[in-house]
Amino acid sequence: MIDAVRVYLKTLQDTICTAIEKADGQQTFMQDDWQRDGSGGGGGRTRVLTDGAVFEQAGVNFSEVSGDDLPASATASRPELAGRSFKAMGVSLVIHPHNPYVPTSHANVRFFIAEKEGEEPIWWFGGGYDLTPYYGFKEDVIEWHQTAKSACDPFGDEVYPRYKKWCDEYFFLKHRNETRGVGGLFFDDLNEGGFEQCFEFLQAVGDSYIKAYLPIVNRRKDTVFGEQQRDFQLYRRGRYVEFNLVYDRGTLFGLQSGGRTESILMSLPPLVKWSYNWSPEVGSAEAELYETFLKPQDWLELL
Amino acid sequence: MIDAVRVYLKTLQDTICTAIEKADGQQTFMQDDWQRDGSGGGGGRTRVLTDGAVFEQAGVNFSEVSGDDLPASATASRPELAGRSFKAMGVSLVIHPHNPYVPTSHANVRFFIAEKEGEEPIWWFGGGYDLTPYYGFKEDVIEWHQTAKSACDPFGDEVYPRYKKWCDEYFFLKHRNETRGVGGLFFDDLNEGGFEQCFEFLQAVGDSYIKAYLPIVNRRKDTVFGEQQRDFQLYRRGRYVEFNLVYDRGTLFGLQSGGRTESILMSLPPLVKWSYNWSPEVGSAEAELYETFLKPQDWLELL
Repeated sequence: MIDAVRVYLKTLQDTICTAIEKADGQQTFMQDDWQRDGSGGGGGRTRVLTDGAVFEQAGVNFSEVSGDDLPASATASRPELAGRSFKAMGVSLVIHPHNPYVPTSHANVRFFIAEKEGEEPIWWFGGGYDLTPYYGFKEDVIEWHQTAKSACDPFGDEVYPRYKKWCDEYFFLKHRNETRGVGGLFFDDLNEGGFEQCFEFLQAVGDSYIKAYLPIVNRRKDTVFGEQQRDFQLYRRGRYVEFNLVYDRGTLFGLQSGGRTESILMSLPPLVKWSYNWSPEVGSAEAELYETFLKPQDWLELL
Repeated sequence: MIDAVRVYLKTLQDTICTAIEKADGQQTFMQDDWQRDGSGGGGGRTRVLTDGAVFEQAGVNFSEVSGDDLPASATASRPELAGRSFKAMGVSLVIHPHNPYVPTSHANVRFFIAEKEGEEPIWWFGGGYDLTPYYGFKEDVIEWHQTAKSACDPFGDEVYPRYKKWCDEYFFLKHRNETRGVGGLFFDDLNEGGFEQCFEFLQAVGDSYIKAYLPIVNRRKDTVFGEQQRDFQLYRRGRYVEFNLVYDRGTLFGLQSGGRTESILMSLPPLVKWSYNWSPEVGSAEAELYETFLKPQDWLELL
């Protein structure tokens, strides 16, 4: 079970990195293989591309960790699992483009097994992807969600609406009353229907990420922008930092489980601004992001 | 009791803002008076100075909030208080200078009352200040701690060592195995010795902050610096963000208690960099910060 998932995840990391390099056309990923220090085993393969033609920073990580005591952040909704020994592996990525008209994107696919002597192991999958535009284009958002829906549909009509809603709820900054972006898919604790079907769903999600993201990158990467758009991008990246450090379960799990800090925090943008009490001009493209795009809604209803 | 503390805190805010403006010599603070929306009462007086000659951003806030249910972050060490109604007021400030040779500093003084029908109200003070240099100078750090010690000494010989140690423990980034800076004072849950004496101690701490910080500002503000020093400052500011959003009890209390987000997050630096797996060159001034200054130690023993 574990071996099959590991092979898939490492291949997915390869496939995504190759596609991102091709889309960038200038820079390639550097790789850090790391072993975990201290208690627990595991390690990972961290890949980072910086200062590309298209991507300011792209981090695509594979990691596999185990431990004697599943951290609270991994079991928020299932406290009965706390204290079990665990194995976790996943691919996690965040792509920060240069051009403010190209959205930031994030994807994660993960597999957990929690074990306890004398009891059956409990396994589950989790993952998803979400899109964070700085300037909103309905066309992009609809395409993103269509690709997500197409990945889900073979597994049942209820799958896309359920994980789309979960994504909106998960990537929400309560202290800002804003979504992180325009959402996508989020699922966790998935073990219904047996291992084979769950694993197939994970692969459908993992494989569809690049198909969902790259067309948007290619459509927007040559849009001319100026200082105002760059400033807004840097400002909005602050929200990304706020989400990841205050709320994100993956980040907190990584830091709590003694993961490799530099691999976990490669999700943070390379350059960020905070401006006290800033708000966009009424009627501006920046205001439209808040008014139209940072609110959960049924994007495919617009079709 | 509350009225006397409120008068002191507002006067302290005035005094500090005047001193910061004078040291800056160019910009003045703008003020936002705000009332709290939603459940609970209260409001505050947020003051922010931006783009000064010396200070890139300085936020000095007074706030007073109340609520029906004391958040967990305020009662980490005293779970028996959770669920009590509360009043909290305080002054909180963070100063981000332009020049990388001038340290960032933070101070906070606060007063809490937790009430429950049919029981005596429980009150306590908390506060302290800490210094976060980008380039370390022993002279500055010793002076900072001497001023802190002088404020504590009238209240007993054990006070400075105790709160100095607490500060080192509190302002610690576990995931980096680094202190946030060179420390100072931190205390919480203070109600030993009666209200009068505790309040006097709070005032001694509050009043000594400007005496501790401004001499360092004035000594370093005209030091010539280049792109390398600026880059290092922006990079190290990332640690400040990491601490405040992952660990800081005041920030989490503010966000959890429905405080005003813009006032709480004025602590975040105006411009920040993250660089994957960056580390300073061996033997450099940047390396010295890590090796010498970001480790808890008895600075006054160096005298």
